[in-house]
Amino acid sequence: MFTKYEEGRLMPIFYANQLIDVGTKIFSAAGAPLEEARIVSELLVKSNLVGHDSHGIIRVIQYVNEIENGSIRPGARIEIVRETPSIAVLNGNWGFGQVVAKKAMEIAVEKARKNTVSIVCAFNCNHIGRLADYAIMASENDMIGIVMVNSTKFVAPHGGRERLLSTGPMCFAFPSYLEFPLVIDVATSVVAEGKVRVALHKGEKIPYGWIIDKNGNPSNDPKDLYDGGALLPLGGDEHGHKGFGLGLAVEVLSGILTGAGCAYEEGKKGNGVFFEAINIGDFMPIEEFKKRASDLIRVIKSSKPRPGFKEILVPGEPEYLTEKIRLKEGIYVPEKTWEEIKNLAKKLGVNEIP
Amino acid sequence: MFTKYEEGRLMPIFYANQLIDVGTKIFSAAGAPLEEARIVSELLVKSNLVGHDSHGIIRVIQYVNEIENGSIRPGARIEIVRETPSIAVLNGNWGFGQVVAKKAMEIAVEKARKNTVSIVCAFNCNHIGRLADYAIMASENDMIGIVMVNSTKFVAPHGGRERLLSTGPMCFAFPSYLEFPLVIDVATSVVAEGKVRVALHKGEKIPYGWIIDKNGNPSNDPKDLYDGGALLPLGGDEHGHKGFGLGLAVEVLSGILTGAGCAYEEGKKGNGVFFEAINIGDFMPIEEFKKRASDLIRVIKSSKPRPGFKEILVPGEPEYLTEKIRLKEGIYVPEKTWEEIKNLAKKLGVNEIP
Repeated sequence: MFTKYEEGRLMPIFYANQLIDVGTKIFSAAGAPLEEARIVSELLVKSNLVGHDSHGIIRVIQYVNEIENGSIRPGARIEIVRETPSIAVLNGNWGFGQVVAKKAMEIAVEKARKNTVSIVCAFNCNHIGRLADYAIMASENDMIGIVMVNSTKFVAPHGGRERLLSTGPMCFAFPSYLEFPLVIDVATSVVAEGKVRVALHKGEKIPYGWIIDKNGNPSNDPKDLYDGGALLPLGGDEHGHKGFGLGLAVEVLSGILTGAGCAYEEGKKGNGVFFEAINIGDFMPIEEFKKRASDLIRVIKSSKPRPGFKEILVPGEPEYLTEKIRLKEGIYVPEKTWEEIKNLAKKLGVNEIP
Repeated sequence: MFTKYEEGRLMPIFYANQLIDVGTKIFSAAGAPLEEARIVSELLVKSNLVGHDSHGIIRVIQYVNEIENGSIRPGARIEIVRETPSIAVLNGNWGFGQVVAKKAMEIAVEKARKNTVSIVCAFNCNHIGRLADYAIMASENDMIGIVMVNSTKFVAPHGGRERLLSTGPMCFAFPSYLEFPLVIDVATSVVAEGKVRVALHKGEKIPYGWIIDKNGNPSNDPKDLYDGGALLPLGGDEHGHKGFGLGLAVEVLSGILTGAGCAYEEGKKGNGVFFEAINIGDFMPIEEFKKRASDLIRVIKSSKPRPGFKEILVPGEPEYLTEKIRLKEGIYVPEKTWEEIKNLAKKLGVNEIP
């Protein structure tokens, strides 16, 4: 750990490797096989690096809690319950979501290499974290990676007042010659739930248009989401049928086709996982695809910004810029979070914490 | 034809079969093989039936014009230029878009039946019309149908002032036991270009947030779109990175992977076509999938609307409701459009027009 003096206080700041090490040791001490402990820690810290702290090291606390209450079963066997040369359906048996998801994309890539296009689904799968990590596994293999998941209900249908859908994220990764992964990873709700939670924790208001309260009325108070309210689908009052429609497609693909169950269903937990890989080389020379994808992005980036915008940022770029900084300057972990992680380590008998 | 007296004037109103007949005869007279003339007319009139008049019989005028100037080549041979058991890439040789697209989805369904999941792309393909028609071809075969296309540039990247992307529609159709096809068909721009054109023709203003003018400033004047302006991506100033990201994914899949070229490229015309079919029976019993999809929709439809909304409409439902009415009451064709179609028929020597 090194500390930084900012806003009148010392802040705990860590290099990525230190946090990976801490996470790995804690998960191991909580009963996870070493390889799983490392996979999960690396993916969590990767989220910190790219700026998505809500999916980062803070989750160690939640996951250990879930191991203790039996929700996460480290070392669970991943079963293939259905398979053809192009597809597989996995029963994750409630192992770590990240472990199941990594395995699922590995199978998808392998199948797409032989059969051009593949789909691998998973059910009984815990929270898999940031979708981009898995889509990028495909793009690093010169394939297109597509990832969709559902989870618990948070989003109202367009025009509805009840939560019935999950935030329905869609993620696409494409290989290119750019210096950052070309990856689109967006919730089909106006915002991801984490953004409202962050505002709640900071005691801040949110803009109107993100949520409705339990009576279906617009609200700018994040508390209302957790008091029977709902997130709204992307597109707002005028165009919310679009976010609703896309979210519904994600729900059917990742909740029904996978066998994982829909967000609205009683007792729904974890992620229903839909992964697809497309082997580009069977469509065209991979170099041509990469060149064309890179050209498209360069043309967009070099076009004129409109008033109010300094530059055009393309998907994957903000994460890349953040990662460059955090690899050098380290990752800030809020004091309260770090305190909890230290206590957890102590409880589990992990001593060598920075 | 029968007429209806409304707003002080007589309106030309037709049954669907009459319009299909008119279209078929006109296309035939313009040199199209009878089967192609019928396929295209049926799909155009289907758009009228479901309420999307901008993709309906009005296009007969445009298509005949395009036949005459060589853009559409009726009877063109559709070539398969690349193929594996799971995928095909088609050169449409600039035949009717609808004819190429219908063939493409037929091949996709056939391949998915044998290989669970298939992708069929097409380039050198004219405007294919309403995406839902092709996605539904898959869902009527107990498969999931996915359709994405690109076209000419109309949409600015988030934060940009220049048109560089097409409206990037995404379409998903799922089989179910509902009385209407469960089909999501949405542009990833705030609105489709047709909506701005309709406002222009009516001399009406549009809401702020749909377009920017040539200087990148917000505008409510539809003229500004056609004077160097651009459509905005879904999500507005705050969340436009989402529509931009999704539109970019559509651009790469339907413009690059297909070989059709990107919207920003000089001389880009027609549609780049990306079709996918997923054979559900290889994942789970089709009855179970249909039941679960129907249950999801019924739960959503029976949930409480929020203030300001009378009911919750799900994707595919508005089209179904419109079709029920128009099958009974007929399709209104604006006088000016009908006049042009009649003149066109006369010019081509087609006499038996209602």
